[in-house]
Amino acid sequence: MALPARFHGVVPPVVTPLTTDYRVDYGSFTAVIEHLLAGGVHGLFILGSTSEVVFHDEATRRAILEHAVKVVNGRAPILAGTIDPTTDRVIGHARAAKAIGVDAMVVTAPFYTRTSQPEVVDHFRYVREAVDAPIIAYDIPVCVHTKLERATIVTLAREGAIAGVKDSSGDEGGFRYLLSDLADRPEVFLMTGAELTVDGILLAGAHGVVPGLGNVDPHAYVRLYAAARRGDWAQARKEQDRLSRLFEIVRVSLPRTSAGSAGVGGFKTAMRRLGIIQTNIMARPQRSLNDEESARVEAILRDVGLV
Amino acid sequence: MALPARFHGVVPPVVTPLTTDYRVDYGSFTAVIEHLLAGGVHGLFILGSTSEVVFHDEATRRAILEHAVKVVNGRAPILAGTIDPTTDRVIGHARAAKAIGVDAMVVTAPFYTRTSQPEVVDHFRYVREAVDAPIIAYDIPVCVHTKLERATIVTLAREGAIAGVKDSSGDEGGFRYLLSDLADRPEVFLMTGAELTVDGILLAGAHGVVPGLGNVDPHAYVRLYAAARRGDWAQARKEQDRLSRLFEIVRVSLPRTSAGSAGVGGFKTAMRRLGIIQTNIMARPQRSLNDEESARVEAILRDVGLV
Amino acid sequence: MALPARFHGVVPPVVTPLTTDYRVDYGSFTAVIEHLLAGGVHGLFILGSTSEVVFHDEATRRAILEHAVKVVNGRAPILAGTIDPTTDRVIGHARAAKAIGVDAMVVTAPFYTRTSQPEVVDHFRYVREAVDAPIIAYDIPVCVHTKLERATIVTLAREGAIAGVKDSSGDEGGFRYLLSDLADRPEVFLMTGAELTVDGILLAGAHGVVPGLGNVDPHAYVRLYAAARRGDWAQARKEQDRLSRLFEIVRVSLPRTSAGSAGVGGFKTAMRRLGIIQTNIMARPQRSLNDEESARVEAILRDVGLV
Amino acid sequence: MALPARFHGVVPPVVTPLTTDYRVDYGSFTAVIEHLLAGGVHGLFILGSTSEVVFHDEATRRAILEHAVKVVNGRAPILAGTIDPTTDRVIGHARAAKAIGVDAMVVTAPFYTRTSQPEVVDHFRYVREAVDAPIIAYDIPVCVHTKLERATIVTLAREGAIAGVKDSSGDEGGFRYLLSDLADRPEVFLMTGAELTVDGILLAGAHGVVPGLGNVDPHAYVRLYAAARRGDWAQARKEQDRLSRLFEIVRVSLPRTSAGSAGVGGFKTAMRRLGIIQTNIMARPQRSLNDEESARVEAILRDVGLV
Repeated sequence: MALPARFHGVVPPVVTPLTTDYRVDYGSFTAVIEHLLAGGVHGLFILGSTSEVVFHDEATRRAILEHAVKVVNGRAPILAGTIDPTTDRVIGHARAAKAIGVDAMVVTAPFYTRTSQPEVVDHFRYVREAVDAPIIAYDIPVCVHTKLERATIVTLAREGAIAGVKDSSGDEGGFRYLLSDLADRPEVFLMTGAELTVDGILLAGAHGVVPGLGNVDPHAYVRLYAAARRGDWAQARKEQDRLSRLFEIVRVSLPRTSAGSAGVGGFKTAMRRLGIIQTNIMARPQRSLNDEESARVEAILRDVGLV
Repeated sequence: MALPARFHGVVPPVVTPLTTDYRVDYGSFTAVIEHLLAGGVHGLFILGSTSEVVFHDEATRRAILEHAVKVVNGRAPILAGTIDPTTDRVIGHARAAKAIGVDAMVVTAPFYTRTSQPEVVDHFRYVREAVDAPIIAYDIPVCVHTKLERATIVTLAREGAIAGVKDSSGDEGGFRYLLSDLADRPEVFLMTGAELTVDGILLAGAHGVVPGLGNVDPHAYVRLYAAARRGDWAQARKEQDRLSRLFEIVRVSLPRTSAGSAGVGGFKTAMRRLGIIQTNIMARPQRSLNDEESARVEAILRDVGLV
Repeated sequence: MALPARFHGVVPPVVTPLTTDYRVDYGSFTAVIEHLLAGGVHGLFILGSTSEVVFHDEATRRAILEHAVKVVNGRAPILAGTIDPTTDRVIGHARAAKAIGVDAMVVTAPFYTRTSQPEVVDHFRYVREAVDAPIIAYDIPVCVHTKLERATIVTLAREGAIAGVKDSSGDEGGFRYLLSDLADRPEVFLMTGAELTVDGILLAGAHGVVPGLGNVDPHAYVRLYAAARRGDWAQARKEQDRLSRLFEIVRVSLPRTSAGSAGVGGFKTAMRRLGIIQTNIMARPQRSLNDEESARVEAILRDVGLV
Repeated sequence: MALPARFHGVVPPVVTPLTTDYRVDYGSFTAVIEHLLAGGVHGLFILGSTSEVVFHDEATRRAILEHAVKVVNGRAPILAGTIDPTTDRVIGHARAAKAIGVDAMVVTAPFYTRTSQPEVVDHFRYVREAVDAPIIAYDIPVCVHTKLERATIVTLAREGAIAGVKDSSGDEGGFRYLLSDLADRPEVFLMTGAELTVDGILLAGAHGVVPGLGNVDPHAYVRLYAAARRGDWAQARKEQDRLSRLFEIVRVSLPRTSAGSAGVGGFKTAMRRLGIIQTNIMARPQRSLNDEESARVEAILRDVGLV
C-alpha cells in the first residue's frame, strides 16, 4: 500500500512536551502542532525518536495519537511511530494507530534482541501483513544498532511491504543508492532524517525531509525545501547554513547530559523560549537543560534571528 | 533493600515456551519450571533475555509472572525481569511484578535512547524509589549497548539502590573487581550470566550463576556449583567442560538465523527433544531451528549423555 | 605552513599497480599518473589508503615517492601519505617525503595503539614541529578507529599545525561544521574523500575532493568539479549520478573478498580493462578480483560508457 | 613447526624503557630482562604491545631484539613480536627476527586495512611459508579491530601454520573452546594475555600466561602458575586477588591519558619506583604519568607489599 499522493516535503518528528511531573502536556502539544502547521510543513511524524516515543507506554501512546489526530483534523498527513523492540509489539502499536486514523506507520528494525538481516526483512513483512496501512521503514542504527541494508530496503519496497523510508543512518551515499535503485518506483517515499545536509540530499533527489530541528524553525526548512524545488541551490544552501548554526543548540548541555538529552532537550529549551511550550522537561532518566544552558540556547536563537 | 538471605547458587533464566501460533504455552511453561526445580536450582529468573522478555507486551508479561508465581508456590525465590527501554516503563513493569509477588526485579540500563552513565545511575535510583523491592542490575551490553561501569554499580550498591548484579557483559576481569569492591557488602548478590567459564568465576568468589543453558541441564550446573562450594575444583572443571560441549547447541543454526534465534532456539530445540516442551517455536521475527538443525542438536545431547 | 595557493579541486589518491609477484610495477605507475594528469586533475595524493600505503615498507615508500616526483615533474602538486601507527614513525616517513620533494604530507591519527583526543592533538603537533612542510589531517575512522573530533581539527588548523583536512569519515554534517568554523581561514584546505555525494559536498563549499574512483574516470570528477564551480548544480548531480553507477565496481567481489580488496581491487580491475595498468593484483593478504568478477566490472564500465 | 618443548608458563611481554629523549634505554632494558629472569619467568615476549612495538621503526626493532638475545643468552626462550599492518611487512620483521635468533614470532591479523577472515587465514599462511620458524597467532581485537575466529585458529593450528596463540581478546569462553578443540594437539601452545582472571583460565587448562603486569611483579605470576600446576586453587586465587589489586596501577592516569598510556605507563611508573628502570617515559604521542599519579602508583605498590 502506497502513501497518499499528497506526501512530500517537510515532515518534522513532533516534540512531545511534558509537565514538571513527567506527564504529557496536551495544551503545549496542541501548540506545537499549530506552530508546525503554521510553519507550512507538509506532514507530521508523531511518536518518533524526537517525540521520546520509547519513553511512553501503550496507553500513553494511544492518547498522544488520538490528541494529534483530533488537533490536526485532516490538515496534514500524519505518520505514527510504532517503535518497540519486537514484531508483535509493533503490530500491537500499529493496529492501535490504524484504529485512531493515522495515514502511515513508521517501523524500525527490532532492537535489544540480536537480529539478522533476513529476520529484519521478515519483521517488516509480518507487520505489513497484520496491518493494512502504509509502512515507512525507519533506519536509525544509532538507536537500533542494526542498519537496514540496501538490499533489505529495495526488496521490501519492490514487493510492497514498505511504502517509504526515513533514513537517519547518516549514510548519505547509501541513501543515494536507494534513490537510484527505486527511481522506477516514484510511489516509494524516500525521506532523510538529516538536519545538516538537507540541501545536498535534496539536490540528490530526496522526496522529503524529517528534521527534528524543524520543531524550532519549521519555516526555514519549508523555505529550504521550496528553494530546492525551484532549483535555487544557492538559496537552499544559505538556508541550510543558517539552520546548521541553529542546530548548535543540540550540543550546549554536552557532556553534562547524554547526547539524547542534549538533542531533544535543546529543541524543547528553544521552543520554551519561543513561547510554544511550557517546560523543557525531558522524560526520565534524561536530564533537562539547566538555566545556564538555556541562556546559551537563547544566544543561539538570537544569533539566527529567532529571538 | 537486600535480597532474602536464601538467595545463592544456580538461578536459570527460564525459557518461555510458545505454541505454533506464537502464544505462551502455559502447560509447557509449567513443565519447564518443574524440570528446573527438580534439577535442584536455587532460584528462577522469569522474563529475562532467554525468556524472550522483549517480545512480550505488558499484559502477557503479567500473565507469565502470575503463572510462574502460582506454579512455584514459594519453593524457590523468583527474580522478574522488567526490561523495557526507559525508566517509567520499567517502573510500570516493576509495580506489576511486585503486586504479583515476586522476590526481586531485574533491571537493565535504558536502551534505544542514548544515555550517559550518570543518567543510568539516576535510572536505577528512580526505579528503586518507585518500587519497594530488591533491584538486580542486569549488565548486558550486547543487547543494551551500554556497559554498566564499575563505579556505577559500586555507587548504586553502596547506597542501597541495587541489591545485586547479573553480569552478562563478558568482562570477567571487571566482574572480579565488583567482587572485591563489594567484599564488605556480602548482602549484595553478584551473579554471572556466563555459561562457559562458571568454574573460574566461582573460584573468583561469585555468589550465583544465571546460565541460559541451565534450562537444558539444570542438574549439571547444580553439581558444578556444589563442587565449587566444597572446593573440588577439578570436578567443577569437569562439569564445566561437559557443559561447554553441550553449549554447542547454540551455534547449529548459524548463520541461517541470527545469534539470538540460534541461542534460545538451541535451548528450546533441546528441551523439546528432552520432552520438556512441545515446540521449539521462537517469537517473531526470529527463526526456529529446522529439522536438520534439530538433528544436530540431538547429536550433541547424545554426546553429553542427555539422550 | 599553508599549502601552495594553487591547491584546489580534484586530487585523486593514486593507485599503486603491482606485478604478479607483488612488486611495484613502475611502468604502469607512470601510466596511471599520466592518465590522471591527462584527465585534468588538480593534484595527486600518493601513498594514500587507495595506494595500499600500509602494505609498503619504508624503502618501497621512498621509491614510490621518488618515482612519482620524477614523473610528475612539477605538473601538479603532490600530497604524500605518511601513514603508520605512531608519531615518530610518521615523522620518519615525513622527513623522507620532504627530502624527496613533495608538496604536503597527509597524516592520520595513531592506530593500533589506543589514543585519546588530546594525544591525537599532540601527535599532529609533534609531526609539524619535526617537519617544515604543510600537514593534511586525514580523518579515516574506518581504518584508524579514531575519529578526528571537530575541536581537534579546528584547534590544529587555527594554530597552524595543519594546513588542511581530508575527510573520509562519512560524517558530512561534521565536515560542514569544519567549513563554517574555518570560514575565516581560507588557506586551510578542506577536502572530502567521498565518492558518492560530491555534488552536495561541493554545494556546501568544500575546497577539494579526493575520490579513489577518480583513478578510473578522472575526467568525470573534473567535469563535476567544474560544473559545481560555475554553479551548474543540475549538471553536477548528473555527473555524480553517473559516477555512482560506476562506483558499483567496488562491490562485485563481495563477500568473497574483504571490503578493502573489493574497493581498490575494483579500481585496479577497471584500470586494467581500460589499458592503463597491466594487472589487477592486490598486495597480500588481499584477494584480487577473478575472471567472473572482472567481467562484471567490464559490464559496469560499458554501462557508463567507458568501454 | 612447533615450539621448543620447554615452552610453558609465565611469559611476560617485556616493557621497553625509554630515555627522556625517546630513545631506547638499553641499560634499563637489560635490568628489566634480569629482573624478569630473576623472577623465575619461563620465557620472554619481546616487542609485544606492552613493549610499545608499533612505536618502533624497522631498525630500532632489530636493535631491541639483538640486545635481548644477547642479554638472555639462552637462559629462556624468546618470542618476538613482528607486528605491523600487513603481510609482507610482517614477513620482513620476521626474517630479521629469525636471523637474530629468537625462538618464535608473534603475529597479529592485518590492521588499518579492512580484511576478511579468509584473508586473515592466508596472512598467517604466507608468513609461515616465508619464515621457517614457529608462529604464534596474537588475538588482540582492541588494537587490531579484527577477532581471530575460532575456526581460523583451529584451521591454522591443525595445518601447522601456527604453533600457538596469545589470546588477548577477553573472550574467555572462546579461549576455552580453543583448549578443547585442540586438546589432541598438545604441541600447540595456548596462552592467555589476561591479567585479572589467570587462576580461572589456568583451571580451564591454559598452557601459559602473558601478563603485562608480570613486568612489575614476575614472582607473583610465577607463584600463581606454580600453585595452579600443583592444584592448589585456593592459593592461586589468593595470588590473583593480590595481583588484581596491584593492577589498579593501570588506571591512575585515566582519563587524563588514553587507556594505552595509562596501562604501560602504570607499569613503567611502578618499575621506576622499584628501581628497575630510570624513567617512566612513554613513546610519543602517549603521555607519561605525572608526579601525583606516580604517588598513587606508589601507594598501590605499598598496599600489596612491593614497597
